[in-house]
Amino acid sequence: MSDQDVRAVEEGLSAEELREIWSLANPEERVEGFRSLSPTEAEALFLSLDTRLQSELLTALPANERQLWLRQLPPDDAADVCQIAPTEARDSLLRLLDEPTRKEVSALLAYAEDEAGGLMSPRYVRLRPDMSVDEAIKYLRRAARERAETIYYIYVLDAEQRLIGVVSFRELFGAPPDRTVRDVMHEDITSVREDLDQEAVANVMAESKLMAVPVVDAQGRIKGIVTVDDIVDVVREEATEDIQKIGGMEALDAPYLQIAFARMVRKRAGWLAALFLGEMLTATAMAYYEDEIARAVVLALFVPLIISSGGNSGSQASTLVIRAMALGEVNLRDWWRVIRRELAAGVALGGVLGTIGFLRVAIWGAATSLYGEHYLLVALTIFGSLIGVVTFGTLAGSLLPFVLRRLGFDPASASAPFVATLVDVSGLVIYFTVATLLLSGTVL
Amino acid sequence: MSDQDVRAVEEGLSAEELREIWSLANPEERVEGFRSLSPTEAEALFLSLDTRLQSELLTALPANERQLWLRQLPPDDAADVCQIAPTEARDSLLRLLDEPTRKEVSALLAYAEDEAGGLMSPRYVRLRPDMSVDEAIKYLRRAARERAETIYYIYVLDAEQRLIGVVSFRELFGAPPDRTVRDVMHEDITSVREDLDQEAVANVMAESKLMAVPVVDAQGRIKGIVTVDDIVDVVREEATEDIQKIGGMEALDAPYLQIAFARMVRKRAGWLAALFLGEMLTATAMAYYEDEIARAVVLALFVPLIISSGGNSGSQASTLVIRAMALGEVNLRDWWRVIRRELAAGVALGGVLGTIGFLRVAIWGAATSLYGEHYLLVALTIFGSLIGVVTFGTLAGSLLPFVLRRLGFDPASASAPFVATLVDVSGLVIYFTVATLLLSGTVL
Repeated sequence: MSDQDVRAVEEGLSAEELREIWSLANPEERVEGFRSLSPTEAEALFLSLDTRLQSELLTALPANERQLWLRQLPPDDAADVCQIAPTEARDSLLRLLDEPTRKEVSALLAYAEDEAGGLMSPRYVRLRPDMSVDEAIKYLRRAARERAETIYYIYVLDAEQRLIGVVSFRELFGAPPDRTVRDVMHEDITSVREDLDQEAVANVMAESKLMAVPVVDAQGRIKGIVTVDDIVDVVREEATEDIQKIGGMEALDAPYLQIAFARMVRKRAGWLAALFLGEMLTATAMAYYEDEIARAVVLALFVPLIISSGGNSGSQASTLVIRAMALGEVNLRDWWRVIRRELAAGVALGGVLGTIGFLRVAIWGAATSLYGEHYLLVALTIFGSLIGVVTFGTLAGSLLPFVLRRLGFDPASASAPFVATLVDVSGLVIYFTVATLLLSGTVL
Repeated sequence: MSDQDVRAVEEGLSAEELREIWSLANPEERVEGFRSLSPTEAEALFLSLDTRLQSELLTALPANERQLWLRQLPPDDAADVCQIAPTEARDSLLRLLDEPTRKEVSALLAYAEDEAGGLMSPRYVRLRPDMSVDEAIKYLRRAARERAETIYYIYVLDAEQRLIGVVSFRELFGAPPDRTVRDVMHEDITSVREDLDQEAVANVMAESKLMAVPVVDAQGRIKGIVTVDDIVDVVREEATEDIQKIGGMEALDAPYLQIAFARMVRKRAGWLAALFLGEMLTATAMAYYEDEIARAVVLALFVPLIISSGGNSGSQASTLVIRAMALGEVNLRDWWRVIRRELAAGVALGGVLGTIGFLRVAIWGAATSLYGEHYLLVALTIFGSLIGVVTFGTLAGSLLPFVLRRLGFDPASASAPFVATLVDVSGLVIYFTVATLLLSGTVL
């Protein structure tokens, strides 16, 4: 056994085990574990790490190994690693690449990470339309041998590099050898602009069901391709961001167990404090109704019930609309349809909760002396308030994402707790208004 | 112009416009619009529809067209269409397929829709290990011409159909023609079991960064392949389900604007009513402290503030843990690490909110007579309660997903509002306990 094998056996760590403890290990342990793997295992592990972890591992390795591993990455992933590295390290990383790759990577670094240009690979196969199928296949065979290219789709360009057709490798491969590329190519091309947001790119790919889409500039010239495996990451990442925003925090942008504790607490504390400041208005609203509460403490008993119902129905509505917007199912111009639908839903849901609430108070009130002699009026107050609060919560929850998007913000920032806070304050006002109307002269 | 073209021009609908109004149109309008498209446009539109809409369109078409379009689908999508169709229609749909496809589709119907077997395509390329590279490429060229197969990866099987190797098409295509397939294939194969849940399949694919993974049975025999374009749909679908559960409702399982109103309200009312019943415990808890509230109405003013802070911090924690579990970043055995982390986060976040709350009450109390002469004690009550409530909320929110998963439920069902409800009730108890401890003899 070689020294390396001995060490691997002594440590008893397989590639799988190493991957599992990766986030807990310090840089030295990672390097040691990484080196104990066979070359094939090490390559699989390295390629499976996310960009941040790849960058950390590269930094921890000595210069010669750093070059070896950086060159394993396709240019789009190498660009991501350079982008995430500290600015002062970026140039030294770029210098590790061979000349043609460095050019490709530098071109990719000009794009934001979350737009089509930042996702694309510059390594695709391009052909002229007047080549024969047989010539094209010979050319592809050489290209496959010499360069790591994606050959599932072949893009046909005119003399100005403008994209005029596309043919899948399977179609080309199965076509009669003496036809020209022009004969077998399709001219109806699904493509995306280089500055398109990655969430929109994901929606285009999900709808087109293609394995790759070409990225073009304003003049229709092809700049690269986005492959569907990168889209899986985008979809997961965007969903995670939305879920965390809906959960009432800034997106963490890092796996939960890997993010530094202080950084995580900061991202959570900001939103919690903002919501807390908003929620302070409830204390102001309650103070405004202090006399009513003093005269009829029974009113205070239902405050949590009423306002949480508004909050829950608002969360539902905003979550639904935010997700439908992210999937492209609902657009800004659908706002009126959505609002009408949610108004009806709000009244229906308010009716359900109001009825349950009415029965609860009426039955308890009849059976005990808990709610005083006017318990039926109290029950009616609960019924009316719930209809009002739930309808208002549902409407506000569905409207807010439209308002935020119209103003250019991410609708997911209309996160459920934000709606809940808005609805809590208005819910108190609705509740005490209904109570004043129904109970003046009896309980109040 | 043909009749069809005239109609298309008269209606002025492009394929894109038709797609946009699709969900609003009734079956007759859909058929009419669909027929007005050119064959290429119609094919693109049909293939881009989701399974439910494809099934509805097929049902609305006359029998001969139905057969034509059903046969356009690859077998895994045809199986999905059959699965979603009413039981009595399923056999008649199956009869429209040609014999070999019907066999493939029937085999796929045996799997649940959300496991690897239900996602896979039976059309992959298999080779024997002792073929030469040149023979293999000739064989593939014929296969590409004759059958719609995915040829990006080629799977190498032994005589018992067991998977022994894999080679990418690009590698095979670039290899010296006289080597054997065995020489160029890889033996370290990433595969998934046929009954693996689709969310786990998505995690395997995201980690391996492959364009397709083979699906095998317990004996290691290959049954089909799952391609990454299907995984994009899975990831979107699973994220939508989780987001809707976190938003406090059942997963809708249909696009927002397409689901029938009554069905949507039912899915939302169930959870809202359950949460409402839970939230009724707040009225019970409040009634228990009725005397305290009557003696010190000032306590009631802060009830919404206190309980919403617990709810918001609980939502944060549960959302974080639910998402990290879905992505495979956190497993059941990590519970103790997560809980320790969340305990520390809860104390820190509670400290932040408690300090803000203390300052608010102390400053307002000094400046106005709103909170009485003992306003500093009230401020201290708010401080202590917030630390307790936020810590408890954070702990409960992070623990509940573990408990639910341990019991075999979906952790996303520990949706944020459910945690909020749990925390509301406990928050009241914490608040009034702290108040009794600090304020007895002065305010109380």
